[in-house]
Amino acid sequence: QINAERLLTSLHALGQIGALHGGGVNRLALSDADGQGRDWTVARMRELGMQVTVDAIGNIVGLCPGTEDLPPVMIGSHIDTVRTGGLYDGNYGVLAGLEVIATLRQAGIQPRRPLAVAVFTNEEGARFQPDMMGSLVYVGGLPLQEALSTCDADGVTVQTELQRIGYQGMAPVGAPVVDSYVELHIEQGPVLEQMGLQIGVVEGVQGISWTEFTVQGQSNHAGTTPMALRHDAALVAAQVAVFVRELSQRLGGRQLATVGALRLSPNLVNVIAQQAVFTVDLRNTNSAALAQAERELHAYAQQAAQAEGVHISHRTLARFEPVDFDPEVVNLVEQQTQALGCSYQRMPSGAGHDAQMLARVCPSAMIFVPSVGGLSHNVREHTAPADLQRGAQVLLQVVLALANR
Amino acid sequence: QINAERLLTSLHALGQIGALHGGGVNRLALSDADGQGRDWTVARMRELGMQVTVDAIGNIVGLCPGTEDLPPVMIGSHIDTVRTGGLYDGNYGVLAGLEVIATLRQAGIQPRRPLAVAVFTNEEGARFQPDMMGSLVYVGGLPLQEALSTCDADGVTVQTELQRIGYQGMAPVGAPVVDSYVELHIEQGPVLEQMGLQIGVVEGVQGISWTEFTVQGQSNHAGTTPMALRHDAALVAAQVAVFVRELSQRLGGRQLATVGALRLSPNLVNVIAQQAVFTVDLRNTNSAALAQAERELHAYAQQAAQAEGVHISHRTLARFEPVDFDPEVVNLVEQQTQALGCSYQRMPSGAGHDAQMLARVCPSAMIFVPSVGGLSHNVREHTAPADLQRGAQVLLQVVLALANR
Ligand SMILES: NC(=O)NCCC(=O)O
Ligand SMILES: NC(=O)NCCC(=O)O
Repeated sequence: QINAERLLTSLHALGQIGALHGGGVNRLALSDADGQGRDWTVARMRELGMQVTVDAIGNIVGLCPGTEDLPPVMIGSHIDTVRTGGLYDGNYGVLAGLEVIATLRQAGIQPRRPLAVAVFTNEEGARFQPDMMGSLVYVGGLPLQEALSTCDADGVTVQTELQRIGYQGMAPVGAPVVDSYVELHIEQGPVLEQMGLQIGVVEGVQGISWTEFTVQGQSNHAGTTPMALRHDAALVAAQVAVFVRELSQRLGGRQLATVGALRLSPNLVNVIAQQAVFTVDLRNTNSAALAQAERELHAYAQQAAQAEGVHISHRTLARFEPVDFDPEVVNLVEQQTQALGCSYQRMPSGAGHDAQMLARVCPSAMIFVPSVGGLSHNVREHTAPADLQRGAQVLLQVVLALANR
Repeated sequence: QINAERLLTSLHALGQIGALHGGGVNRLALSDADGQGRDWTVARMRELGMQVTVDAIGNIVGLCPGTEDLPPVMIGSHIDTVRTGGLYDGNYGVLAGLEVIATLRQAGIQPRRPLAVAVFTNEEGARFQPDMMGSLVYVGGLPLQEALSTCDADGVTVQTELQRIGYQGMAPVGAPVVDSYVELHIEQGPVLEQMGLQIGVVEGVQGISWTEFTVQGQSNHAGTTPMALRHDAALVAAQVAVFVRELSQRLGGRQLATVGALRLSPNLVNVIAQQAVFTVDLRNTNSAALAQAERELHAYAQQAAQAEGVHISHRTLARFEPVDFDPEVVNLVEQQTQALGCSYQRMPSGAGHDAQMLARVCPSAMIFVPSVGGLSHNVREHTAPADLQRGAQVLLQVVLALANR
């Protein structure tokens, strides 16, 4: 039996680190606050008697021995947040994992396989792209050196920041090799709440495509330059932002499209923008549909740039195909959910998660709990305590079943 | 006879202060560089034997006595620049004014009326709005206290910055009362170059309307929030930017519209923007047409905000009706241009200028010289030396005629 109070207390304690005035958390990957959050989490792991290792990309793994020396069952997620994030995104999965360890320890239960709790570096991708960076490196999907040399918007590298906060560890990347992986997460969307369900049995993760466009125009005077002679970088950025909304409407409800970041320069009221740098986030559960949306985006961006006489270039910040989780582990999640008498449905995940990377190397699955109002990446992100407790209980049962297989 | 070499040398010397790597100048109003530029200009005025005063909004006036104790003829402009500006915008008018003083001094000519050269504070409006702030306060169009408490984007006030750079002076605002005002400026647009003309006889300044919009949406997860449930502040900003371009096309060539500044928050790839703050710069030579464009802008902004379920608010950063210069002074400029054998045309100004404020209190006019490629508010802003010389010569003749009236 999960101790709900202990779980909630730990969520609020970690939520103090990087807390924003008026609610929410800013613990961007590899910031000072992330470093403090890591210290807190590692201390908690040690209290629980876990053996803690840190690898070269900063992934933290806490390990508890099983009765046999086998590959561990891993519970994982992340503790980095977006700039204006909530208490639960990622943190819930890690702290529920530690709550599972604490519960088993207290009950004197040692399963057959070892249990591991992982904290993956930079899952959010808010500061450094791609997202899920730590787990992607862990499974060999991104070379370590490439990840370490990634820059944030100020040109600071992952390596510099890892060293600065003291989290570039010595453990070999990708160790331990794991038996299976389970991640508990808030849904971050409105589906479970709208359907009045308690648990989401996650079957997979939709495809993610992140592109950064740079529009190079010509700065000039807003009061003297005839409209026909302009090369306005801001206009083209705005046209693309409007286009992707229309595109998603045209392609139907499963095609998501967002322009979330945009920077103009010189960014002054009476100067036609010389440069616009902006991102487009496209998602679709269907691989071919996502590729089609990308093609339409690029064709439109080229056409809009040409019409305005500006130059446009792009780079891919992240590109992940849709992922299907292991049917057996998904079934196991469903069985344990049923056994606990929880209402549920099978569903895909809209957000990217470390589980989609671990799925490349071991049987993996996820468990969702409802998000109030479907809000996430928002300081008012919330999940009811009873839902938090239920999710952790499902996690405990699933992990026990996997570890005793 | 203007000394062209001395004029060019002084333009390049002042252009060193705040010089950007690779060309151009960043001397935003009341920055350290603006302070150094002021020091340099005041030193040059003192070298020329002028009596220098600074008023409470930081306007600098250098005065040379006439043979009679009458209100002076004032030559003026500004030395602040946008963030990525050129060598000539404003600086040319001030330094050509000092060149006129130097030329008359060397020739031993003392006209009937005193001559004044003015450097007005924050003409650009790039850092603090409204633009033409110093001259507007000078003519009583903006209360001093209101101007002093204006904040930049970081919340720093005009007063704080004036004191910091040592340019909040003791002279009464609006002194001296002037007889007439002439401003020489680069055109900053493509008209004179395209028509192959040497001088623009400026008849007036078009109307200027600057509005800052704040869109308040709801941040949420880009991967989990269905399109239909979004309240995307960035989308509405982009829609307005696209709309104003269409509006200007629909209303015809004389309606200019620019979104030059736009800031999103939290400004992250996978977070739907919670807030967008952006500016719209509308200009028209026709007062009624400008008001009509403003009405259409506000109606569209409301409608777009409503469709997306976001809140939109706005504040006016600057609003100036079209201005007609004094017909007699305009005629005088035309006569002197003809007398010097320069090709010219009468034309309106697209950019705002201190002359449009002085026109409220005394007969005023302006002289334009061509801008290469119509570029301004751009580090590659350029005017040919022969054009710079010609403009200064016209200024000298006009000022002499006014001062001996
Ligand atoms: N869980 C989560 O918010 N991950 C961030 C990556 C994404 O944008 O989906
Ligand atoms: N001359 C000039 O560029 N003034 C700045 C004010 C404006 O935007 O027109």
